[in-house]
This record gives sequence, C-alpha cells and structure tokens, in this order.
Amino acid sequence: MSADDDSRLARVALTWLAEPGTRAVHRLVERLGPVATLDLLLDGGSPDGWLHTTVVAQSAAGDARAVAAEALDRADRLGARLVIPGDEEWPARVAGLATLRLPDVSRRVDAETAPPLCFWVRGSWPLGEALERSVAVVGARAATGYGQHVATELGYGLAERDWTVVSGGAFGIDAAAHRGALNAGGLTVAVLACGLDRPYPMGNTALFDRIADTGLLVSEWPPGAEPLRPRFLIRNRVIAGGTLGTVLVEASARSGATQTARRAIHTGRVAMVVPGPVTSAMSVGSHEFLREHPRARLVTGVAHVLEEVGRIGADLAPPARGPQRATDTLDDDARSLLEALPRRGALGVDRLAARARVDVRTALRKLSLLEELSMVVRRDEGYALAPPVTPKPGSIAATAR
Amino acid sequence: MSADDDSRLARVALTWLAEPGTRAVHRLVERLGPVATLDLLLDGGSPDGWLHTTVVAQSAAGDARAVAAEALDRADRLGARLVIPGDEEWPARVAGLATLRLPDVSRRVDAETAPPLCFWVRGSWPLGEALERSVAVVGARAATGYGQHVATELGYGLAERDWTVVSGGAFGIDAAAHRGALNAGGLTVAVLACGLDRPYPMGNTALFDRIADTGLLVSEWPPGAEPLRPRFLIRNRVIAGGTLGTVLVEASARSGATQTARRAIHTGRVAMVVPGPVTSAMSVGSHEFLREHPRARLVTGVAHVLEEVGRIGADLAPPARGPQRATDTLDDDARSLLEALPRRGALGVDRLAARARVDVRTALRKLSLLEELSMVVRRDEGYALAPPVTPKPGSIAATAR
Repeated sequence: MSADDDSRLARVALTWLAEPGTRAVHRLVERLGPVATLDLLLDGGSPDGWLHTTVVAQSAAGDARAVAAEALDRADRLGARLVIPGDEEWPARVAGLATLRLPDVSRRVDAETAPPLCFWVRGSWPLGEALERSVAVVGARAATGYGQHVATELGYGLAERDWTVVSGGAFGIDAAAHRGALNAGGLTVAVLACGLDRPYPMGNTALFDRIADTGLLVSEWPPGAEPLRPRFLIRNRVIAGGTLGTVLVEASARSGATQTARRAIHTGRVAMVVPGPVTSAMSVGSHEFLREHPRARLVTGVAHVLEEVGRIGADLAPPARGPQRATDTLDDDARSLLEALPRRGALGVDRLAARARVDVRTALRKLSLLEELSMVVRRDEGYALAPPVTPKPGSIAATAR
Repeated sequence: MSADDDSRLARVALTWLAEPGTRAVHRLVERLGPVATLDLLLDGGSPDGWLHTTVVAQSAAGDARAVAAEALDRADRLGARLVIPGDEEWPARVAGLATLRLPDVSRRVDAETAPPLCFWVRGSWPLGEALERSVAVVGARAATGYGQHVATELGYGLAERDWTVVSGGAFGIDAAAHRGALNAGGLTVAVLACGLDRPYPMGNTALFDRIADTGLLVSEWPPGAEPLRPRFLIRNRVIAGGTLGTVLVEASARSGATQTARRAIHTGRVAMVVPGPVTSAMSVGSHEFLREHPRARLVTGVAHVLEEVGRIGADLAPPARGPQRATDTLDDDARSLLEALPRRGALGVDRLAARARVDVRTALRKLSLLEELSMVVRRDEGYALAPPVTPKPGSIAATAR
C-alpha cells in the first residue's frame, strides 16, 4: 500500500471514528498527518477526554482501518471516489472553515466546525472546479409555492451565468434550487449528510440521479452512513464554507437553513436572504436573520446575488455579447453545431447534425473547423465541448500535503 | 387685533406667499418673528432672489394679509383651527426638521424641508398630544391585498397599544392604516397636502369624516388650497418629522412613500420597512430602501415597530422562536442518544452508545433519564423511541405573530 493510500485510508477511518468537523482531530492531522493521528487515537493517545471516549465507543463497533477499507471498496463499486486535500480536485475554499467560530455555542455541532478530512464524490466534474464559482441556495423543507418559485428562478439564473448551485438534498427549497440549475443545463452540487449509496430523502431519488448524471453528489460520510440528525448541521458548514455565498430562501423560525447562513457569515462568506410576506410562517426565520445580522444582505433575485459574489465588474453586466467572442466569427451552421453540443459528455456526428439541423457532411466539415479553433474535442464517442481554460484551484491543497 | 392675532395672520400669509418648508422664510421667522418677516417680504426685502420672485408673483394674485384673514374666517366656519408654535397643542417634535438635509438633492422640494410655520387642524384632540406617541404608516396607493392587510394590522395593533397612527389620505396603504386604527377605536391623524375643506381624494370622503370625528385632519395649507403634486412631498416631511418613526408598507420602485421614509431617516427618526414577496412590484421600492439604507430596520409586525419606537423596556418584542421542544432542555449526550434511536424498532445499549458516540455507562444513565421524560421506552430488545403523543396545538400560528 502506497503512502498516499495509507493517507486516504487514515482520513476515512478518522471520519468514521469521530464525526467530521471535530476540531481535536483536525488539529492533530494538521500537526502529525492523518496516518500518525489515526495510530495515536487507536493507541488510546487522544489528547481530549471526549475524543478518547468517542474513539473507544466507536472502536467497540469495529476496526477503524477495516471499516475504512470496506468503505473504499464499496465506493468503488458505487462509482464514487474519495477526494482528499492534496488531490487536484480538492476544493481549497473549505480550508476557511478553520476560522469558523460561532457565537453563543451550546451544542457540540456548533463548536465542532473544523474543515473536512475528505469528501466522497459521485459525478464526473472535478469537485474543486465545480465549487470555484459557486453559490449555495438553501431554505425550508416545507417551502411554499412562493419559495419554490424563487429558489427555482435563482438556481436557473445562477446556472445560466455559469455559476454552480450548491444545496442539500431536502424537499422544498433545496430540491427547487437543484431543479432550476438542471433546467438551465447547469452544474449543481448536492452535499449530503449520509452515504452516497443512500441519498436521503428517498423521495428525491430521481432528482439525485439527475444530479449525479450532470453535477455532483458529495458527502463527508462513507457509503452506508445514515442521515442522523446532527449530521445535517455538520454538513451545513460545508455548504456555507465551500461556496462564495449562501442565499437563504424561506426559513421558519427554527429552520436549519438559517444555521447554514449563520455559518456562512461567520466564515466570512456572504449571507444573503430573500424576504417574503410577513404573513408567511416560512419567512419568519429569514426576516429574523436579516434583523439579527446587519452584515446579511437582502436580495430579491439573481442580479443582487451576483452583485454580492461576482468578481469585480465581471458579473454586473449582462453576458458579454461584444465582437471579442470567438463564436462571433462563426457562421450559422458552425454556431448551431456548437450550441447542439451537450454541456458535458460527447455526442456522435449523426445526433449532432440532427440537433443542429444541418446535414452530416456539413456537420463533419464544421466540426473539424471547431476542433482547429480548440472549441470542440474529438473523442471515441463523438464530439464534445473543449474544457474551459480555468486557472488551477488552490495552493492550500498543496500546502496541506 | 392682538399681537398674537398678528402673529397668527402673518404665519398664514407667509405660508401662502411661499410654500411650507421654504428655508429662507424659516430663517427670517427665527430671527425676526413672523410679523416683521412678512413686512420685510412684502416690502421687497427678500434676502434671496428666488424668494423675492415668488413673493412678487404671488402678491400679484392677491393681498397676502387679506388672503390670510379670509382663510382664518373660512376655517372658523369649517370648524377648523389654526395651531402655531407657542400654542399649547403645538407638536414640538416637528422642530427637528430644521436639521433635515437630504443627500443628492436635485429638486426644490428635497431642499426646502424647514419646519412648518403653522397647522390647520380639524378634530377635538390636541395636536401635540396626539403626535406625542405616534408612528407613521405609509405606502403605495396601488397597494396589494397583502399590503392593505399588513397596514390594517399595523394600524390596529398600534392603536390598540395607545399609539397614534399617522398617514396621508391616499388610497391603499394610507387608508388601510387609518381604518385599522379606527377599527381599534384608536387615534389616527391624516396629514393632508391641501385645504381641510377639500380633503383629497374625494373617494376617501367617508373615511376623512370618520377621522375628523375621532382623530385629526391636519394640513399646512389653508382652506381652499389645491392638492398640487409637489405638495405631497412637502407634506411628507411632516409625517416623517412629526412622528417617532415611519413604517413603509409596500412601495413600488419610484414611490413617494419611500421619500417619507427617507425624510424620517435623515431627521434622525426610525425608518422601518415591511418586506414582501420579491415577486411583487409593490415591494420593489421597499426592498430597495432596505438595501440602500443600512439604518432602516426590517419589521414584520407591530411588536417589531414598538421595539424600535417604544420607550426603554416598555414595548419590547420577544424574538421569534419556534415552539419550545422538550429536547431543548437535553444535554448533548442525551440528544445524541435520542437521535441515534431508529425510527422504528429498538436497539441495544451497546449499539446505541456506539451510534451516539458515548460510552455505555453514560448511555445507560441518559437513557433512563429519557425514559423518565417519556421520550424513550424500554423493550426486551433494547430501547425505542416513545410513540408520539398528541399533535402539538397550533404552535406555528403562535410563533408567526
């Protein structure tokens, strides 16, 4: 087993021994690395009484290393992968959670908000790249028609402008945001509080399948892990810390979604809130959040959201339509073919020609032109959009190695 | 004619010569008193070119002193009275308008915001006393059902707690706020932008009669004055400056009501805004106001309004909270155990301890506590969640208030 494999296994084992976010574990891993940390904990050397108890209790249920190896096998069969710091696709931004300190902490889940040790991922897009330009849209499960409408519009509008939508997997606002993004042909990421083999709730299974097809299903927990209640709050810190900002759409007085917005603010992210009718119980939490957090921003639509999270100037203007775009030099046929290409994956010439409403010979000619312009790439299964040229994410991953 | 009568007549004449709020006139009156100011202006001694032009133009239409005397007679026949500074019922708070300076002024009405020289009043309540504990409720004429509902509730709630409601006389939010106050048997004040003999709009005549019966109709303009457009903005400074705070309920993007809220903020009063659905054009101005003015407060009902304007401690609103749950009193370990219990069926102590990440002795202790609280039941196979009792009585409605 290579050193890298040891490290991966250790991170999985550590996440199994103590819930993700546990500060004591994070501190040890920072100091000793995951392998030495695991050895230390299993040898009874926890520096912290509570952690010691937890490790002992969990170890009684199984051997941490064996459980981790089994989880990795299970993920393999499931088509899921493990992503750890140092991997090219590690989302550097979650490191910011190291600074998250919530005020007035009374529950353990509000105190244990350290960065994740690893992610399980299903879907082909690299996780770090997906989260690079991302906004979280969260809110009530028991959303009203109004809230669902707003969340769908936000998901659609963000995706349309090439922003990744991030949410949980719940009914209501979460699902509406994902659907909006999917309907725009955009990238959407569901961060779950359980194993990727049993996305919760079951009623959203078809949605999870759609997300896995074109976006990402992500979890800190290994396959098989149950969606225990505290895990939703533990998970929320990743939604808040992994994105540039969190939009709260509908929250009742005690909504967990306000906890995501709270985590966003205290991690230095933008917390945005969509108001609603004061007569609606589903907006009570949203309004209270705006009243209690002067730094929270009231937003009424995607333009306001982009104003908050967009790079300077870049997303304030409507999408560029000037002559600088390479596509402007293309003729109608070439442009139609380009637009007929799926956002992800490849398509054969015959299908493409049909979608673009050109004949196959024209399609072949124009596609090789597009290939020369580096706008499409040829693969075994057909033609695909050339990957966008983006700067590589994060130097943090490199230092964490 | 007594000195006091001279002074009254002069104030009326001055208001007729130059629109209420004119700073140059206010400065002269502060320095010379109203009688000498009137003499000076009528003798062509205006210190200000624009004021001079205005006085000359107006004087061509009539003799200021004669017009004023006629206005006083007309008011008498109408059952209205003139109130001037020094009168016992003069509302002292409007003096604060002397400090009002709106930013980015481009129109004369935004610059000429000096305190009133006099008020015409219909209704038996003393004006100053009526405004002592008063809140303005203003908003769109083309209000939605939602906005009218909220304004009525606010008017009702404020009146019920012995606060005076102040507004204009327009359809929509103004009328709804007055109606709410009247329905609660409370005191309501309509500040008009025209003579009290011709309250505008005519469609609200029945409402004006009800207000005059139990509340007050107030205007800076003498009987016969027409509701010219700029007068509504001039009037708005009195609504803002005469009350402790202004609540904006529904405003379209360019609503005059936002100008009242703006005047409130810049006079050091509390500006409060009721949010609404982001899908409603009638809330666009409200949300924009909240986004642009960090000092503006989002309020969702009368409790929040009283929190802002209420005397220290007297009228504080409890923060919105979800229904109190039994689990709120549990410590982390007990809560973890509760959350570790399966939805259906029972689980042995060892398994439960491992899932909850507590040691077995702690698990046993906490489980018997939970058993005492009737939250879990013991069975042969282990512990299980106690069957749900009766549904909790309408807690959402209670918290939504």
